[in-house]
Amino acid sequence: MPIPAALDKLTSLLGDRLVASKAELDQHSRSETHFAAAAPDAVAYPETTEEVQALVRICGEHGLPVTAWGAGTSLEAQALATSGGVVVDFARMAAILEINPEDMDVRVQPGITRETLNTELRATGLFFPVDPGANASIGGMAMTRASGTTAVRYGTMRDNVMGLEVVLADGRAIRTGSRARKTASGYDLTGLMVGSEGTLGLVTELTLKLHGQPEAVSSAVCAFADIGPAVEAVIATIQSGINMARIEFLDSDTVAACNAASKLGLPETPHLMVEFHGSEAAVAEEAARFGEIAEEFGATGFAWSTLAEERNRLWAARHQAYWSILQSRPGTTAIVTDICVPLSRLAQAVEETRADIAASPIPGPILGHVGDGNFHAILLVRQGDAEEMRAAEALSARMADRALSLGGTVTGEHGVGLGKLGYMEREHGEGWAVMAELKRALDPGNLLNPGKTVRL
Amino acid sequence: MPIPAALDKLTSLLGDRLVASKAELDQHSRSETHFAAAAPDAVAYPETTEEVQALVRICGEHGLPVTAWGAGTSLEAQALATSGGVVVDFARMAAILEINPEDMDVRVQPGITRETLNTELRATGLFFPVDPGANASIGGMAMTRASGTTAVRYGTMRDNVMGLEVVLADGRAIRTGSRARKTASGYDLTGLMVGSEGTLGLVTELTLKLHGQPEAVSSAVCAFADIGPAVEAVIATIQSGINMARIEFLDSDTVAACNAASKLGLPETPHLMVEFHGSEAAVAEEAARFGEIAEEFGATGFAWSTLAEERNRLWAARHQAYWSILQSRPGTTAIVTDICVPLSRLAQAVEETRADIAASPIPGPILGHVGDGNFHAILLVRQGDAEEMRAAEALSARMADRALSLGGTVTGEHGVGLGKLGYMEREHGEGWAVMAELKRALDPGNLLNPGKTVRL
Repeated sequence: MPIPAALDKLTSLLGDRLVASKAELDQHSRSETHFAAAAPDAVAYPETTEEVQALVRICGEHGLPVTAWGAGTSLEAQALATSGGVVVDFARMAAILEINPEDMDVRVQPGITRETLNTELRATGLFFPVDPGANASIGGMAMTRASGTTAVRYGTMRDNVMGLEVVLADGRAIRTGSRARKTASGYDLTGLMVGSEGTLGLVTELTLKLHGQPEAVSSAVCAFADIGPAVEAVIATIQSGINMARIEFLDSDTVAACNAASKLGLPETPHLMVEFHGSEAAVAEEAARFGEIAEEFGATGFAWSTLAEERNRLWAARHQAYWSILQSRPGTTAIVTDICVPLSRLAQAVEETRADIAASPIPGPILGHVGDGNFHAILLVRQGDAEEMRAAEALSARMADRALSLGGTVTGEHGVGLGKLGYMEREHGEGWAVMAELKRALDPGNLLNPGKTVRL
Repeated sequence: MPIPAALDKLTSLLGDRLVASKAELDQHSRSETHFAAAAPDAVAYPETTEEVQALVRICGEHGLPVTAWGAGTSLEAQALATSGGVVVDFARMAAILEINPEDMDVRVQPGITRETLNTELRATGLFFPVDPGANASIGGMAMTRASGTTAVRYGTMRDNVMGLEVVLADGRAIRTGSRARKTASGYDLTGLMVGSEGTLGLVTELTLKLHGQPEAVSSAVCAFADIGPAVEAVIATIQSGINMARIEFLDSDTVAACNAASKLGLPETPHLMVEFHGSEAAVAEEAARFGEIAEEFGATGFAWSTLAEERNRLWAARHQAYWSILQSRPGTTAIVTDICVPLSRLAQAVEETRADIAASPIPGPILGHVGDGNFHAILLVRQGDAEEMRAAEALSARMADRALSLGGTVTGEHGVGLGKLGYMEREHGEGWAVMAELKRALDPGNLLNPGKTVRL
């Protein structure tokens, strides 16, 4: 049994920062969604890249799997040590290393959360825009290629990570990318690592693009009689070239759940929540143009807000939507689906999904970042009810099929983890085999987060 | 000698589309810059993905290198068959396969050039913005991660390729990416292929993002007394958040060469050439704000143009700058350097480079896409003059070192090919070894464009 020997060596390396107490193991055994708990053998809290390198080498010698942990907010079980081994929690590598305001970039350690980063950046006039809702760690966001409400304007983690320091499975540390705004210097290792879910390396440092805090911000919410016109309004808005900062869809069930939990007092019909960033003049012009388009599709009950406090209340409610929806049916767990389709197929995708859920035995509020063609259904399953779980899994599988048949992807932003593994071959065909070949090249011992993203 | 047997099989496959005439071999043996000619053993003109697959399999069996050829406009010898073998010319795979105006994307074959693509797109109100100057093929642009004058606004090929069909070294064809605007579905194979210079696969199809043709366009040129203030004006403009569509720097030697070749009649001092895209109001506002900033840095002689004809004359002169510079010293060849640094280090990088060239025995006009921190020196070397070539190589090496010491990259857009191979280890350290490991995983026989990007 190699584990005790390996843990002894790790304790020599990390002292009391190698923990195997029941409380710590429990805390690192659960995801935020329906996946079964999976406890690691130990939790490590490294403080330096060198410690991560030494840790990986020790685990490699003993065949002990290594799984990275940021804030534990991923939705497809990416951070669960389903094969046991060591969970590497980056809580003690959470510093800002360098801010370059004139170049609008920042170098950080992976454990810092996006909210902490933005608090620290406030005085610079800059911010990091990627916003998946949860207060995720930046390292975890990079590794799952997170996006969220603002991707329609500012892009995803793919677009906002300029460079990385990564510890590979053999313990080497490499630096990828640079602080230049573009490069043609060899294979895009940064892009290969972003979205690799810790299966190709452990990120120990990130260089991120920052953006100027907008001079003016305006948010609005408006109601539609039905899903179709709401989604058609989104498509018309995006195609008109209006530079939305956020454009979110909430179906009537989602609105009802948010009303109940956050006292929004909205009519319980489909809604769009939008936000504009820019100069006072640009925001006013774009908001007016959006209003005209939305009205063409029957939007009513516009509530505009340029006050930070009111806006924050609205977006806090949106960010809490998942929890509000869970509360709407006590005693449930959720399959949180996530598909993304070309914009022209969005209305069809949402309406077919809605009808499919309506015909099923379980509730499934729909919401999403529809400016990207990306939406979710929160499929609510009574805990321990195998029949409901089967129904939810079947709905989720049909959503994935629908996404692929419409030219889209089975996950717009939540990633593969365990939940989307079963659809990868259908989406990528032989390309999924190629992903496994890359994994084998960089991690021949299948040490890093085994069982996620690819199958070997 | 395996080559005749392989060529026989290729002739069986392609008939008279497998060519080995002296004229064809010559035509495919030269790059646009100083690299020594290198003729392939044959040139193939496939018409389908299946033919490319069969070709790669035949070449693999016989150990015959395979090098892709688009329009032959790359600047670092990427398309030269320096180990002989077959050059695959994609001239007969140059169709537009599908335009999706409502989703603003297009599916094309690799041989189509960007000018042809944009001509075909004109009626849709959409365009493909990446503009490296040369009328390059889209496949070649993807494989070198091209960018050019408009990248400051629309991004590079990295940002505008959504998906690919790629034939791998073993003859498998894979599809990467999708038509969804974002995805978190596994490793970013599209990103890995873009910029890989045909060393990991042959691209047989591309899905590209399109952009709306701007309602209004305004261009301007203005003069500065010296390099420093011109570059500082660029930095201030970008930092102010003005959404430039292009912002190009030309030093006095470049202006002189353009004057001579294109009769621009500009004062022979450093210049900026800029362009704004957007609504009439936005363009007017941004142009005015730029004008104010430029004047703060001493800009004079503003010439504005909103007329297409006049704008085209200006940008044609800019795109011809390389040829104009070559003409300025007859009987020369050029090392076209290409570095990219963080914006805050741009003035230092340009000024040090300028001083370095001034102290050397050769001329080297400087110009570049300075909104990205990217610039070039065209180092003019008398043909056959070994001493001048040594001086140019030494200048180029010092530029690369300068880029790295300032936090940048040794190539912003021209790629590695042969010319930047010698700097890769310095830029990427162990990361360059990782690139070679990926190459080995996907092309263990080193069949595809051997000798480029990585060393095995």
